[in-house]
Amino acid sequence: MPALQDLYPDDFAHCYGCGRLNAHGLHVKSEWHDGECIARFHPAPYHMALPGFVYGGLIASLADCHAMATAAGASMISAGLRPGVDATPRFVTASLHVDFLRPTPLGPELVLRARAVDIGERKVTVEMRVLVDGLESARARVIAVPAPTSMRPRVAE
Amino acid sequence: MPALQDLYPDDFAHCYGCGRLNAHGLHVKSEWHDGECIARFHPAPYHMALPGFVYGGLIASLADCHAMATAAGASMISAGLRPGVDATPRFVTASLHVDFLRPTPLGPELVLRARAVDIGERKVTVEMRVLVDGLESARARVIAVPAPTSMRPRVAE
Repeated sequence: MPALQDLYPDDFAHCYGCGRLNAHGLHVKSEWHDGECIARFHPAPYHMALPGFVYGGLIASLADCHAMATAAGASMISAGLRPGVDATPRFVTASLHVDFLRPTPLGPELVLRARAVDIGERKVTVEMRVLVDGLESARARVIAVPAPTSMRPRVAE
Repeated sequence: MPALQDLYPDDFAHCYGCGRLNAHGLHVKSEWHDGECIARFHPAPYHMALPGFVYGGLIASLADCHAMATAAGASMISAGLRPGVDATPRFVTASLHVDFLRPTPLGPELVLRARAVDIGERKVTVEMRVLVDGLESARARVIAVPAPTSMRPRVAE
């Protein structure tokens, strides 16, 4: 099944974190599984905080994009749409909170498991765990809002 | 005056966000000015969330590194040391909270202005504003702790 980010309209697919059309970006991919949204990411060797440990800003970036996809998926379910099948609506981040529970070793794949815990018309709250080798290294709580009109691309003609 | 990151010991200078020895990184530079810590950063054109707007994960990354430098500077002052002159101690992030107040336009320099609001032996709390063209676009509150022994490089011999 396609990632939710693969189904953002082209105008919303340039995000550095998760846009398929951003040649320099991280290309975060989030997949919907029965109410849970899961992303897997291999940090590059240079994504370090200190030698041997993942940079916290990378974890925050992954959490940011993955939460937006999770919020979109949850809102789609509420509207009777199918995450990973129908076009994904674009949310943006109102607030991002990450607790770093322990240093995250650099090398293994990171797994982000997220759920929407509150789904309103104006905002969606997402909670997520970041796992490495099955051990939780960080938690995030993110508030997502539909992309405001002021951020939507102008129609060119 | 050198940035605080220029005075991290070499073993702590590989951070993707602010390490001078990370060839791929963002190279955040934080300068100490009378109790306030200031960083200036020009996002790259590809650091976008949507066309025309800065990626929130970048703002979180800048806030993360700038807060660690701010915590270090404040702890140095408490210990009678001189930020930007003496070696900078390495803090790591315990928690990171960012409120995105409005979309941040992509193009102008970002200015991060931070202060330590609580300085303890075991943790330092930092608050910061992110400004673009003088307008506040985000706020962050970050808890920093001294890098634990488990993250410090092993002596090789």
